[in-house]
Amino acid sequence: MAELTSLITATPEEGRLLAIQLARKSIVAIQPDGDTRKSLRQAYATDTMQLMMAAQIVALEFQTIALANNHWKKTD
Amino acid sequence: MAELTSLITATPEEGRLLAIQLARKSIVAIQPDGDTRKSLRQAYATDTMQLMMAAQIVALEFQTIALANNHWKKTD
Amino acid sequence: MAELTSLITATPEEGRLLAIQLARKSIVAIQPDGDTRKSLRQAYATDTMQLMMAAQIVALEFQTIALANNHWKKTD
Amino acid sequence: MAELTSLITATPEEGRLLAIQLARKSIVAIQPDGDTRKSLRQAYATDTMQLMMAAQIVALEFQTIALANNHWKKTD
Amino acid sequence: MAELTSLITATPEEGRLLAIQLARKSIVAIQPDGDTRKSLRQAYATDTMQLMMAAQIVALEFQTIALANNHWKKTD
Amino acid sequence: MAELTSLITATPEEGRLLAIQLARKSIVAIQPDGDTRKSLRQAYATDTMQLMMAAQIVALEFQTIALANNHWKKTD
Repeated sequence: MAELTSLITATPEEGRLLAIQLARKSIVAIQPDGDTRKSLRQAYATDTMQLMMAAQIVALEFQTIALANNHWKKTD
Repeated sequence: MAELTSLITATPEEGRLLAIQLARKSIVAIQPDGDTRKSLRQAYATDTMQLMMAAQIVALEFQTIALANNHWKKTD
Repeated sequence: MAELTSLITATPEEGRLLAIQLARKSIVAIQPDGDTRKSLRQAYATDTMQLMMAAQIVALEFQTIALANNHWKKTD
Repeated sequence: MAELTSLITATPEEGRLLAIQLARKSIVAIQPDGDTRKSLRQAYATDTMQLMMAAQIVALEFQTIALANNHWKKTD
Repeated sequence: MAELTSLITATPEEGRLLAIQLARKSIVAIQPDGDTRKSLRQAYATDTMQLMMAAQIVALEFQTIALANNHWKKTD
Repeated sequence: MAELTSLITATPEEGRLLAIQLARKSIVAIQPDGDTRKSLRQAYATDTMQLMMAAQIVALEFQTIALANNHWKKTD
């Protein structure tokens, strides 16, 4: 998985993608085996409770990224 | 799903709507299949625990949006 | 449900009430059917785990509101 | 339950007490019936998962209070 | 349990210890009976889900403490 | 486990590693017995709900670390 070199992104949309990448990066760090992760993916993608847990992690990572990018403000 | 071009909204009400959109955007990113999401929706909309998980995600996304909008303050 | 026009409240007490309103507003947005919400209310109001989930959402919304109101400080 | 007139406390210790009061205030708002709350209390005070949910709410409320009090810093 | 007189610590390591103390302080406030807490401890120390709940509380308390200590920065 | 002497890291990537270390440090503090932790590890690394709990802790710790490092910004 690509190294995290910066929290700065060009747009909020790219910030969302980075938030999702950071969430995945954590999962990879805790469960490095790709096959195990693949077998687990089916479970969480079809279970609303787990989908929402994942969305909560993305929301937390995005808070960090939005702040780092000064919220992508044009005027300040 | 529409691209996220900005966190800035005209009013707090629009900020709430954006928070809900961001939460949905995460769910779409994790579970891209629309039919699967549709079948899951019935489950979480009638289960209080899951409803509250969803409301928690909205609260987190709204924290980010409110900060980006300097809390929609008129006087600072 | 009333539109959210401002995060500014006169007192911290009103800020708490707004935090509860925001939490409810999220639930309404996710489950718009009033009868379904009514039937769900009994469940979460008598289940400590769900009560605490609700209190957690209120705490998150209050964080946002307190910051927007500069914590209702008299001296800064 | 006493009205919340200020987030400012004399000491961090009083800030912790206020955080616990805010958490309780939310529970009271959601479940106003005292007898029901009393019967629920036994459940959450002897269940570690629920104890930890409660401690998490206190941590969130304390974040808000500590910030409002500028962390009770003597020098800044 | 010792009174909380300050959030300021000499080092980040001491900040972690304080975060753990604050989490324990909340548990003591909610469940004041030491014997009950002792019997509960075995449960959460051998259940990964509960261990992670506890670690999450520590993370939240540490956020507050790190901010109060200006992140223990040498240069600012 | 190594003492935490600083939250400052050279890069965001090292910040992620520190976030994971802090999460592990909490688990060690709550469950000091290495053999017990080892037996628990299998459980949480193959259970998506627990994997996501762990990722949530990492997200919270990373928020703290990113802020301490001024988000590793080159220009401010």
